[in-house]
Amino acid sequence: MALIRNIHEETMNEVNMPGVSGAKMAIMVGREDKAPNFALRSFEVVAGGHTPKHSHDYEHEVYVVAGNGQVLLEGKMHDIREGDVLYVPANEEHQFTVDADSGESLRFLCVVPVEQNCGGPVPGS
Amino acid sequence: MALIRNIHEETMNEVNMPGVSGAKMAIMVGREDKAPNFALRSFEVVAGGHTPKHSHDYEHEVYVVAGNGQVLLEGKMHDIREGDVLYVPANEEHQFTVDADSGESLRFLCVVPVEQNCGGPVPGS
Repeated sequence: MALIRNIHEETMNEVNMPGVSGAKMAIMVGREDKAPNFALRSFEVVAGGHTPKHSHDYEHEVYVVAGNGQVLLEGKMHDIREGDVLYVPANEEHQFTVDADSGESLRFLCVVPVEQNCGGPVPGS
Repeated sequence: MALIRNIHEETMNEVNMPGVSGAKMAIMVGREDKAPNFALRSFEVVAGGHTPKHSHDYEHEVYVVAGNGQVLLEGKMHDIREGDVLYVPANEEHQFTVDADSGESLRFLCVVPVEQNCGGPVPGS
């Protein structure tokens, strides 16, 4: 079934994973919506917060909606801002962080496959 | 290889397809970047413009970046605005339109699989 949902109206849930601080997520389109190939999730990371520093066997495609932050990619930190699209290949270590003195949260979308490369669902897809 | 690109800085190319008027696209992450599963494209449709009214055997996941417009889905027109996420299932007829008196272009991202359901590349992925 077709869907229209707004990221500013969906309830976001705290991300409870080791290495995460101050991050919330809402699945905008996912496996429960019968999305066959990929899921689109909405994230918010508050000032001073971060996602886990990790890697996995599937890629991310990310769009920065609002705010400023940094991303760890290929061993370096890069500033990110509204309008940025990021490609994080499979098995590439990455982490999103927001400065403690940032005046606003970082909002981004993150698209992932619904299945890991060796099968099984991608967490949060 | 990891990538960071901004939608406001990429060159957009006119979409030349039957049934399209006033639409431009930039592939932000695609097959040429070795994206294994899905491609993320950035679209701009000017006031009075539209994408084709069509359907195909692969889904869209869309995010509205800016502007206002309408989308045809399940036989009806729906208003869309910044922050909206749309899921357009495979084989569902759809079209994006922008009112002629809209003060600004509609900007959206559209994610597609890189391969059609029966194989072969998805156009513009």
